[in-house]
Amino acid sequence: MPSSAKSSSPQYSDITAAAERLSDHAQVTPLLESDLLNERLGGRLFVKPEMLQRTGSFKFRGAFNRISRIEQAERAAGVVAYSSGNHAQGVAAAARLLGMPALIVMPRDAPEIKIVSTRAHGAEVVFYDRLTENREEIGERLAADRGATLVRPYDDPYVIAGQGTVGLEIAAQARNAGAQLDAVLLPCGGGGLTAGSALALAEDCPGAEIYSVEPLGFDDTARSLVAGDRLTNDASARSICDALQMPTPGETTFAINARLLTGGLVVDDDAASAAMATAFSQLKVVAEPSGAVALAAVLEAVFPIKGKTVAVVCSGGNVDAQAFRAALDVEG
Amino acid sequence: MPSSAKSSSPQYSDITAAAERLSDHAQVTPLLESDLLNERLGGRLFVKPEMLQRTGSFKFRGAFNRISRIEQAERAAGVVAYSSGNHAQGVAAAARLLGMPALIVMPRDAPEIKIVSTRAHGAEVVFYDRLTENREEIGERLAADRGATLVRPYDDPYVIAGQGTVGLEIAAQARNAGAQLDAVLLPCGGGGLTAGSALALAEDCPGAEIYSVEPLGFDDTARSLVAGDRLTNDASARSICDALQMPTPGETTFAINARLLTGGLVVDDDAASAAMATAFSQLKVVAEPSGAVALAAVLEAVFPIKGKTVAVVCSGGNVDAQAFRAALDVEG
Repeated sequence: MPSSAKSSSPQYSDITAAAERLSDHAQVTPLLESDLLNERLGGRLFVKPEMLQRTGSFKFRGAFNRISRIEQAERAAGVVAYSSGNHAQGVAAAARLLGMPALIVMPRDAPEIKIVSTRAHGAEVVFYDRLTENREEIGERLAADRGATLVRPYDDPYVIAGQGTVGLEIAAQARNAGAQLDAVLLPCGGGGLTAGSALALAEDCPGAEIYSVEPLGFDDTARSLVAGDRLTNDASARSICDALQMPTPGETTFAINARLLTGGLVVDDDAASAAMATAFSQLKVVAEPSGAVALAAVLEAVFPIKGKTVAVVCSGGNVDAQAFRAALDVEG
Repeated sequence: MPSSAKSSSPQYSDITAAAERLSDHAQVTPLLESDLLNERLGGRLFVKPEMLQRTGSFKFRGAFNRISRIEQAERAAGVVAYSSGNHAQGVAAAARLLGMPALIVMPRDAPEIKIVSTRAHGAEVVFYDRLTENREEIGERLAADRGATLVRPYDDPYVIAGQGTVGLEIAAQARNAGAQLDAVLLPCGGGGLTAGSALALAEDCPGAEIYSVEPLGFDDTARSLVAGDRLTNDASARSICDALQMPTPGETTFAINARLLTGGLVVDDDAASAAMATAFSQLKVVAEPSGAVALAAVLEAVFPIKGKTVAVVCSGGNVDAQAFRAALDVEG
């Protein structure tokens, strides 16, 4: 797998190799469980809290795995990435760890905490207008100008393999807990977390169904899975789930997801907010709206788990205090 | 160590035995770290997030270890406990797991989430007035009436040993992270978590200083350590740290703490609130005021960690949404 092979598909062995590379740098997040949630849902629910990951989301996994593969001769020119803020922080932290400069293209309306943290991790930030400009074009141009390596947020085999370590950990931790998973639900934007984890789970947890979960209006993967082809979202769609607003599934990620996923689920913003409040009160973790959609699918019985054993990934917790307070108003 | 020996002191081997008993029931909480906090503090800070423990605080550890030692013949009569709410939930959940009824004496002004959750774990709750009534007397009378086993919140060797598994995990996890701890700071009420963890750390992490951290006005352990004798708090003291308001250090716990602690630290309510906000923004975990005091001691430089490697325990996250929102206002 050459480091420039953008569209080559990762294999299971790439995920175990990523886990090896990440072992001294990423947090092995636990698999949480709540007696009271289990009772309420009539099933057994495991929650993988990736807000506890370095930089507050799973994105550090893929970013570090990718950036650590950059040849020594190319490192001085640094990396460029475009991101709504979680990939941004993952790339910034990984680049700094590896001694490389990072330039990140972020939407002007990204949550304040994501912008502040990306800069605090030592990255330079340039803004674009999410509704009128094309971030891929800006990122590619800036990378070319600097001779820097563009670290794509999901359509990269090393990024997918890095995110896949989430699935690898879930399979091992569920086994250690004596549980046989019936299903695993994952928040889905470009599809990197879902695709990587699906590759790991297909091997290590072959009986489990795998579902992507998306916010209403950004259900491109759900519809694409049905159509068997990559569809796009309506440009007028809006959601509080700022990390899951991709125009269409990734090419490499969708090829994997189309093969391995049982289906795609969709939840609305109110469900995401309510799940943030439940994560607060029952699990004691801070979920951002995008991070809470898979939990929301279970709580709202979009995917009922009565009599089942199910794992959901909470993918991130980078949310401004004001937005978090608003979510707590829903329940509290 | 007979199960009725209230005042006998636990040993290191009691903690490893507790860890064994807890292995299928308690969460092994991770050791979290934040690049940005480390940078800000100029040291290496590990956070042990016990809000992720079953029932939302470390208290499940001691409660399960104690209740699992109750003889079969005594189980039908159940358990009685008094608690501001975290020991309450730990006892309720452990008793239910072991098939025993639980009756908990709680202050009428305990946080709503603690009362609701204790009942949700299947316990019967009776209230008392924290400022005018004696909870020990009420608990002992109710236990005697029912022939039930009284599960004391800290002055019990099995409870102390159970809480000590926190220290056992910290030592092993810091070692795995390649870190040598200079100090460990623990929230301290009656002193069970501190004493148990100190016993574990003295053996597994002998170079580390160990400090209790208490809220202003409830610094009985700090003052008692200096005096070499168990002192009491002023009855007029008030704090938002509802879980750390004991009148005086426990007898068994203080004997251990006096021998093993370097000293006792004190933080005020504002520092606890600010630490809750930092736990939210940097660590993505929900800390209750009492749970945040050790983190607060580091953040406010009551205990500066520049150039040091230090672990703090965040002991619980059972906080009402309204109180949490108020804490976020401080920072956000």
